[in-house]
Amino acid sequence: MQTDRRSWLILALAHLRVPELQQLLELFGSVDTIVEQPRSRLAAAGLSDEKCAAVTSPDDSALETALTWLDDDQHELVAWGDDAYPEMYTQIPAPPLLLYVNGDTAALQLPGFAIIGSRNPTPGGVRNAHSFSKHLSGQGFIIASGLAQGIDAAAHQGALDAGGKTIAFLGTGIDRVYPAANRDLAHAIASQGALVSEYPLGAAPERWHFPERNRLISGLCLGTLVVEAARRSGSLITARLAAEQGREVFALPGSIHNPLAKGCHELIRQGAKLVETASDILAELRPLAGHMLSTTSSESQEESPVTAPDDDYTELRKHLSHDPVSIDDLEMQSGLTIDQLSSMLLILELHGEVESLSGGRYALAG
Amino acid sequence: MQTDRRSWLILALAHLRVPELQQLLELFGSVDTIVEQPRSRLAAAGLSDEKCAAVTSPDDSALETALTWLDDDQHELVAWGDDAYPEMYTQIPAPPLLLYVNGDTAALQLPGFAIIGSRNPTPGGVRNAHSFSKHLSGQGFIIASGLAQGIDAAAHQGALDAGGKTIAFLGTGIDRVYPAANRDLAHAIASQGALVSEYPLGAAPERWHFPERNRLISGLCLGTLVVEAARRSGSLITARLAAEQGREVFALPGSIHNPLAKGCHELIRQGAKLVETASDILAELRPLAGHMLSTTSSESQEESPVTAPDDDYTELRKHLSHDPVSIDDLEMQSGLTIDQLSSMLLILELHGEVESLSGGRYALAG
Repeated sequence: MQTDRRSWLILALAHLRVPELQQLLELFGSVDTIVEQPRSRLAAAGLSDEKCAAVTSPDDSALETALTWLDDDQHELVAWGDDAYPEMYTQIPAPPLLLYVNGDTAALQLPGFAIIGSRNPTPGGVRNAHSFSKHLSGQGFIIASGLAQGIDAAAHQGALDAGGKTIAFLGTGIDRVYPAANRDLAHAIASQGALVSEYPLGAAPERWHFPERNRLISGLCLGTLVVEAARRSGSLITARLAAEQGREVFALPGSIHNPLAKGCHELIRQGAKLVETASDILAELRPLAGHMLSTTSSESQEESPVTAPDDDYTELRKHLSHDPVSIDDLEMQSGLTIDQLSSMLLILELHGEVESLSGGRYALAG
Repeated sequence: MQTDRRSWLILALAHLRVPELQQLLELFGSVDTIVEQPRSRLAAAGLSDEKCAAVTSPDDSALETALTWLDDDQHELVAWGDDAYPEMYTQIPAPPLLLYVNGDTAALQLPGFAIIGSRNPTPGGVRNAHSFSKHLSGQGFIIASGLAQGIDAAAHQGALDAGGKTIAFLGTGIDRVYPAANRDLAHAIASQGALVSEYPLGAAPERWHFPERNRLISGLCLGTLVVEAARRSGSLITARLAAEQGREVFALPGSIHNPLAKGCHELIRQGAKLVETASDILAELRPLAGHMLSTTSSESQEESPVTAPDDDYTELRKHLSHDPVSIDDLEMQSGLTIDQLSSMLLILELHGEVESLSGGRYALAG
């Protein structure tokens, strides 16, 4: 996008929505043509008075500020329909019209995973966010979050420490950093990923920006993990948006005495997937992310092998017949433990397949 | 049961199952008549050789031991069909034929709740088991568990401390205490509830008894709570049995770094209800337990009131019109917080009900 970026900025500053854009493009052909239309024709096309005024009498000072900002090679606009526009946003309600990007626009194309949570987490929550982020980043996911203090910052940092890319979605204009304490982190993200905003240059961190911004975090990503969150917190909004967007929602459980686990528990009750390890997440997402993820995965070797219960039952059935056999003999013959055998035999007994006899002996029933 | 208890003991020592008993009763009318039948008629009725022999040539020494034990007023037998036989067991697969009870048989009729878990819990797990037990006991539930060390013992103790009744199901004969460390606890339970076993007097704590015994714990109870449990542990068997018996299964979540939370997390993934407070359990079970529970409940006042989200939306809609209104004005008018408003407005926006305008203002769409 070079020639028409002024037109895109005008439409974005007018708060044009993608459905409105699509209708105007059908009528007028291009964004450059749209912004040349007289007010009457825009109004006839259904645009509100407020938006008509903003398109026909654009805020020149805001435009100049944005165009000056764009002089930096690191700074780009990504508009609806651009090659760099994330495919993932074409599937969500209320997709962004225009994104201001400071950093690598290519990061928006890679499979994303959102890690979010409380601004005031426990030290354990911070460690978990960092560790899950580092692990998933190492598997090829772009880690997305909201640049807030606490869990968000730890998530971004985990990806940076893994040498991966991370994207921070801002609730301010792209030229502002909020909170200021994350200034160094923001610079690191811009050079190893991207800062992204849909707000005009200079926009303040208005409180209502953040829930709106959250749909961009969840919408870009295949899944969203909530690490620690209080009840009724912003993280739950993002999780709810993720679910509404058809994305996977994951939550870390915690102690029932940790108030910051309550939001996660609420999500789990509502159907979010309870997660203990990054592998739990990979198992869900790898089929969705497909070949975009690195294939030199090592995570499958990290989990202890667990024999599938069905294999255990197959093994057990080999040693059962109508001749009674003691559980101790079954232990020796099958390689299963007494605990395993006891439970499996009871299940089989309840199903009528096995009969228990005196002295801890078992036989096939019937 | 006075006159026919010798006959019941013979049938129980022969490992007779309830369906077999029912068939024999149809043929022969009473347990006293059954034990008088010649071997040929029992065999003709379908009883196995082993069971025929055990009925026609009973173990007199075992019978004497049991009858002597019954001389104590505290000791009773509860047989299938007795008034004291728990109604709950008539609904489960493999119901017990005969229970040896040391204590109050009436406790078997009251609404039961099982609290189970690891024999080697964390201190926090012990506190949780005790606290949930005490609370639910105070609400009128009989607390059932397995007299093991750790979570089981804490669950029994919580009920005792609440002045409630508790039932311990043994994996040994009723005249033995296993583990020996819980001898004092067992005596307290016998005088404030009951010890219950379906094994013959003197039966050792065979390892295969415990999973079998577990079906009696879960089967007596409306619900089972697993407090802490490792993967593939006995507690998960009980939970699985509870589910198969159509009972409610509850589990306490915990830190992902606590190995004893993993069993609970596995259950939650499989559909067990994640529980944070005893009130969570009461909310599920009170409709099932009905009038049997005390009505002077105080728990409803313990939880902070949480306005239903639908009420919030009703309140918000009152203040929305086609005239744009700022989120700050909405905050003042509705009494909702900016965080709540932001998320609710975004949801309404995504549903096309509300339009967001510049400057954080909102209006009804269309």
